[in-house]
Amino acid sequence: MNGLDKYEILAELARRRGFFWPSFEIYGGVSGFIDLGPLGASVKRRLEDKWRDFFIRREGLLEIATPIIMPGKVFEASGHVEHFKESMVECVRCKRKYRADHILEESTGVESEGLSLNQLDMRIREKNVHCIECGGELSSPQYFGTMFTTTIGPYSEAVGCGRPEAAQGMFVDFRRVYEIARERMPLGVAQIGQALRNEISPRQGPIRLREFTIMEFEFFFDPEDPKCERLNEVENEKLRLVPIELRKRGVEEPIELTVTEALEAGYIIQPWSAYFMAVSKRFVSELNIPSEKQRFHEKLETERAHYSAQTYDHQVQLDRWGWIELAGNAYRTDFDLRGHMKASGADLTAFKAYGGTIRKRAKIAVPINATIGPEFKGQTEHIAKKVMEADAEAIEESFVKHGFHMIEGFKVLPSHVRIEEREVSQTGKRFIPHVIEPSFGAERLIYAVLEYAYSTVEDRTVMKIPRDLVPIEAVVLPLVTKDGLDKKAREIYMTLIRKKFDVEYDESGSIGRRYARADEAGVPVAVTVDYQTMRDGTVTLRDRDTWKQRRAPTSEIVDILQRYFSSRLSLGDL
Amino acid sequence: MNGLDKYEILAELARRRGFFWPSFEIYGGVSGFIDLGPLGASVKRRLEDKWRDFFIRREGLLEIATPIIMPGKVFEASGHVEHFKESMVECVRCKRKYRADHILEESTGVESEGLSLNQLDMRIREKNVHCIECGGELSSPQYFGTMFTTTIGPYSEAVGCGRPEAAQGMFVDFRRVYEIARERMPLGVAQIGQALRNEISPRQGPIRLREFTIMEFEFFFDPEDPKCERLNEVENEKLRLVPIELRKRGVEEPIELTVTEALEAGYIIQPWSAYFMAVSKRFVSELNIPSEKQRFHEKLETERAHYSAQTYDHQVQLDRWGWIELAGNAYRTDFDLRGHMKASGADLTAFKAYGGTIRKRAKIAVPINATIGPEFKGQTEHIAKKVMEADAEAIEESFVKHGFHMIEGFKVLPSHVRIEEREVSQTGKRFIPHVIEPSFGAERLIYAVLEYAYSTVEDRTVMKIPRDLVPIEAVVLPLVTKDGLDKKAREIYMTLIRKKFDVEYDESGSIGRRYARADEAGVPVAVTVDYQTMRDGTVTLRDRDTWKQRRAPTSEIVDILQRYFSSRLSLGDL
Repeated sequence: MNGLDKYEILAELARRRGFFWPSFEIYGGVSGFIDLGPLGASVKRRLEDKWRDFFIRREGLLEIATPIIMPGKVFEASGHVEHFKESMVECVRCKRKYRADHILEESTGVESEGLSLNQLDMRIREKNVHCIECGGELSSPQYFGTMFTTTIGPYSEAVGCGRPEAAQGMFVDFRRVYEIARERMPLGVAQIGQALRNEISPRQGPIRLREFTIMEFEFFFDPEDPKCERLNEVENEKLRLVPIELRKRGVEEPIELTVTEALEAGYIIQPWSAYFMAVSKRFVSELNIPSEKQRFHEKLETERAHYSAQTYDHQVQLDRWGWIELAGNAYRTDFDLRGHMKASGADLTAFKAYGGTIRKRAKIAVPINATIGPEFKGQTEHIAKKVMEADAEAIEESFVKHGFHMIEGFKVLPSHVRIEEREVSQTGKRFIPHVIEPSFGAERLIYAVLEYAYSTVEDRTVMKIPRDLVPIEAVVLPLVTKDGLDKKAREIYMTLIRKKFDVEYDESGSIGRRYARADEAGVPVAVTVDYQTMRDGTVTLRDRDTWKQRRAPTSEIVDILQRYFSSRLSLGDL
Repeated sequence: MNGLDKYEILAELARRRGFFWPSFEIYGGVSGFIDLGPLGASVKRRLEDKWRDFFIRREGLLEIATPIIMPGKVFEASGHVEHFKESMVECVRCKRKYRADHILEESTGVESEGLSLNQLDMRIREKNVHCIECGGELSSPQYFGTMFTTTIGPYSEAVGCGRPEAAQGMFVDFRRVYEIARERMPLGVAQIGQALRNEISPRQGPIRLREFTIMEFEFFFDPEDPKCERLNEVENEKLRLVPIELRKRGVEEPIELTVTEALEAGYIIQPWSAYFMAVSKRFVSELNIPSEKQRFHEKLETERAHYSAQTYDHQVQLDRWGWIELAGNAYRTDFDLRGHMKASGADLTAFKAYGGTIRKRAKIAVPINATIGPEFKGQTEHIAKKVMEADAEAIEESFVKHGFHMIEGFKVLPSHVRIEEREVSQTGKRFIPHVIEPSFGAERLIYAVLEYAYSTVEDRTVMKIPRDLVPIEAVVLPLVTKDGLDKKAREIYMTLIRKKFDVEYDESGSIGRRYARADEAGVPVAVTVDYQTMRDGTVTLRDRDTWKQRRAPTSEIVDILQRYFSSRLSLGDL
């Protein structure tokens, strides 16, 4: 199509039909933000529901929702204030700013992620890289913190950050959710919501966004008992891996291994990680993205986030940008929980039963009733219980360090607690769980789905979007708007609305033009009311993918559609 | 219950079982933020889906999704930078800050919203209001801008704001969505998403939040043709109104009128407004909030937002806080579209056909091919078309004012366009649509639903959450965990999971305790596997609301649950 790449074709279609477009267009736009139109917002909602079904429902995860704006101290504890930054250069002439590794990559074709400021500076000089816009000289690279920052309330010292990931809300809440789940371990906690990253100069449409939707979960497990009891369900699933070991030898071509082989070869450290990578591959494959267009690309130490001991990016091949990350699979160890325990003094451990009783001398924390009563009033009993359950050594450590110890938001002071050493019976021990995190970006997934759904038949665009992700499930068309055909079509439309289908009514233009319009929006079923409908009560059902038509009685439309959307059968077979 | 109010009871339950709790607890909390736990997040998702079904699907609205972070100039144009602020006083002794009208109201019991800084100052002195915490003297009130502000990208002049409402994203996109909808009018555009308001010192748990979820739509219509074609569907619906006219006479008791009467009396200006208020009342009533606990409270000129010509707050009566706004119904006129047209130069008008042709002399804009070609390259044809369609007088005006005119993000200069006066045939005219906006806050709705669902039976808490909002639809319970009962129960659980029910498996504790746990979480159906199941394949189904039990064959569970959740019948009747 006129030498346009798929992104250009899709961007035009997306804008015209309402999948997505750049935000704030009437103000000239701000890069890194997109709006989802009626079709795009619907695909997104269905994608989220599918992800929920695939991961949350089937894996028994617990979904929570925590704020986008979080106090700065959360991100000090998590290491983001220190590590979440990018290298930036400025054109000394036009003052335009660039991400240093990106401009270097763009100008030289050499991957530059993870290089130090010095290395970047040297290569920029060596390769004679200049401003893309005006050709001016570039400044030395500097770091730029890529969290959005603000102030919470009227106190200027109350720094707030836009979360760059949903994860920290789940770490901060670990103890509460663990208790709600009645101390189940392993335990998966999930969240879908906006994430904010103040990119320096994003220029890749829907791929690199400053605001995007993250679908991620933290899977907490006992590092002393890391086996995955569901591994047998995926052990023969094949993964296309590009492990560090190969990358260090210059190989970027994937090797194909089963989950079992990948674990045995040591390419994937944690069994739960391998399990979720396999499930993720199945998930993405169900979006009609072929497995040979997917791969898992392990990040080098210098490319990994600061919290990760191993990261595999789940990548997809796109026409314009090549291999692009759809999801990250990070093994975050106990990095985050440990950081929050240290910074808050809270106990974020889990409990492991020995399956019997062991007697030994140990420190225990005893609440002092005379002092905690007046302090905690109605909460006294609860706090006393929590003090006794807590790790006495952690309390001692936190008294030394902070002068207090936080328990569920209450500040417990040394005057409230006596630490005693006693002969105790222990039925188990406390430990800090380790974490596997699969994290998808919704907008990238949507774009990838659209690119793989794009097809042309007889010069017409047909968006073969998987039926569980389509924005509109059916369109009802009267052949003509007279002789009662339009009234009949509206009745069918209203019946489908009441049955909660996402359906449209369209009466304008020739029937061929209306079919073409529906194909372009990915509508899988068109219901046409014609003169025969008025005689025998049947309508025509047309299949987007085959363009085949069949007749069915009006009274069976709901049932046929319900079966169509809960199976993989074609319309003709229902 | 120990003299606790319902909020205290629910807050404890919500925290323990996982509906909601204050955010960032381990860091001592930050007021104005809550987390939704597994139960709360599920209620929220279902509430959003119900709102979608009620408004978006049935009213044929178009849902879009626009960013939370927006450039500052959007909110300059919308008037928020100037008007979105609160009066603040500071304690001169302890430096604590308060919202001036709130501390005045709290200390004197007199409503103070909408008073000027001077009026507030005078009354604070008159009534001798002091710091609630330390009794210190209060400073004179000052305004505090209540948008969260940040910087987009590395340029400090690129101010970004957290959106205080989702509306502006829909106004800015009006033209694009109008075109996608093939210039349909009236046209409703909806959005569900986070909104941010940097409150000075929020202290009402889930009721006054700095970050919350807004579910709102902008309903655009022709002010010269304001009739609502669906009014007949609600004309006899009764509304409990507290109109300005009564409030000015000191009456705060609602009068009950039908929609028709309220319009005839002039209490509600716009028919579409009355229509959506009636639909909103039906929506809230379906959440099990009785109509006598709802009212529509008209805001005084001084209480209304800057953009509104008439606002009715849809209020609900809550145990602790009295009448609280659940939703706002604002008649925003053309205030916002006009503001954005002025600030951006974009054409945000709609087209009205005359139904015939009128000939008259008029100005038209003619693109100059020699200059636009080199400037807009591949987009030339498109821009030329848009120039010809645009309002020539608006282009002229914008040339005079800005030196350019924006068309879809492209800067059109005087050198690109020739303005000519010609005899033209006009088939219609362009106008700026007016807007009705119903806007719900999801977290408040969730809290209200929980408060009205709360009941006690024989000293046990039963959360009678409407069945389409329950977080967990069914729980599967083996009577004992031996003799294969647990295995059978797990099989049933997995079957329900595969059928996409939200279901839990619970095997710990006595059966009575497990029923109690399910009642407290609002689970409407418990499926119990007992020894009879092993003999004859039937299970016990227990109804949360009646505690009645019936037996049913295992093979019918899915069907019974499907019918239960798509009807209002009780379990015993299915």
